[in-house]
Amino acid sequence: MNKDIIIILAEPQSPGNIGMTCRAMKNMGFTQLRIVKGCDRFDSEALKFAVSARDLLESAQVFPDLASAMADCTLTVGTTRRHGKYRQEILSPPEVGSRFREQVAPDCRAAIVFGREDNGLTTEELALCRWHATIPTSNEYGSLNLAQSVLLFCYELGKASESAGGGRPIEMANSKEMETLFTHFDATLNKIGFLNEQNPDHMMRSLRRIFFRANLDSREVTVLRGMLTQIDWASSAFDGRKRS
Amino acid sequence: MNKDIIIILAEPQSPGNIGMTCRAMKNMGFTQLRIVKGCDRFDSEALKFAVSARDLLESAQVFPDLASAMADCTLTVGTTRRHGKYRQEILSPPEVGSRFREQVAPDCRAAIVFGREDNGLTTEELALCRWHATIPTSNEYGSLNLAQSVLLFCYELGKASESAGGGRPIEMANSKEMETLFTHFDATLNKIGFLNEQNPDHMMRSLRRIFFRANLDSREVTVLRGMLTQIDWASSAFDGRKRS
Repeated sequence: MNKDIIIILAEPQSPGNIGMTCRAMKNMGFTQLRIVKGCDRFDSEALKFAVSARDLLESAQVFPDLASAMADCTLTVGTTRRHGKYRQEILSPPEVGSRFREQVAPDCRAAIVFGREDNGLTTEELALCRWHATIPTSNEYGSLNLAQSVLLFCYELGKASESAGGGRPIEMANSKEMETLFTHFDATLNKIGFLNEQNPDHMMRSLRRIFFRANLDSREVTVLRGMLTQIDWASSAFDGRKRS
Repeated sequence: MNKDIIIILAEPQSPGNIGMTCRAMKNMGFTQLRIVKGCDRFDSEALKFAVSARDLLESAQVFPDLASAMADCTLTVGTTRRHGKYRQEILSPPEVGSRFREQVAPDCRAAIVFGREDNGLTTEELALCRWHATIPTSNEYGSLNLAQSVLLFCYELGKASESAGGGRPIEMANSKEMETLFTHFDATLNKIGFLNEQNPDHMMRSLRRIFFRANLDSREVTVLRGMLTQIDWASSAFDGRKRS
């Protein structure tokens, strides 16, 4: 199972780290690397640090942004060092392992996303991910090297797949379906003046967290979009004026 | 506890790996590094890869051989990729963690020993160690980077030393709050004609499942009720007629 989990590097800045990431992935039996923009992966440093994992470097796929890199993925985990000010569950690597073990259906793609060496993932990028995870570190020096972080997650996921039990897999909606739902929510709530009144980003982030936690399946996404379509219809006469 | 576990590098060949080892140790809260001979630890590559862990590089102790480097240690673990031809139990990183947790007396020193990048520890060096351990890797490419190996052991030992408990409790909305939310959903969706079109019980059951699974907290219930109130307002001109 773990061979199918995709590792996504968002705008990696150091070719050496891309190479080391390939080595760490191959050490743990992972093969699928995706890169969002970032530096030259065929730089000599990348080749040097990949050692015997140059095949991964060569087969890596490159995408223009994170949304397209994970459009076909259902279980998406964004890694972060920050503990958001909004309520958001942050998983540990073994917790990610058990969720994957319990919830990955045979044909659903899973991805773990790692951000830039200096600044990690942006708030917007994290918002695209179903779950968030962090590696517990010393308070004194929490900045892990990028490839070290990848290794730790691959190691834990490898362990999780070894002990794979018989959890019931859930058919979750994929990233593209979820984004279509959020786009619809955003448009509808804007039109009825709900997002105008409040901090719109804040509100959409709350909705994202709620619906990601709910592990929606495709049918439920359809139900919610039907509800939004009906709200669109019912409020078509609404002129967006403020409530008194 | 883990701050007292000693990491020993036997004849490391790459200064960069020594630097990366320091960083990985400090990330996980380890401070005691010992080096058996090996390359210059103040080489510029070592300093570069240590980043903010130069203090460990500076405080590292250097020994002429492994026996003297671990003379004062009680629990010693030699790491290896080989599965010895003699019967020898080989522990996994979590097993080392539990042994340390169970067996480290308050005043006894423990050490984990890592060998050369190319050839690991010699048979004689392994024989000096009480226990042997290995990191499970892919059969296809089992050669881990030295600092990556150190990181994985430090990570597991850090986990072992965290005693159980400490999970963050989630403040979920209570039943009364949830029921108020569902009553509001029911009324609003009825009014805009969404529940009329479909099997209303079926639809409300779907929404219940979605929002129960989402483990809403009180603030999120308030957000969703605010959204429903705005839908009520925006659709106040709606006369409930069917869509064409």
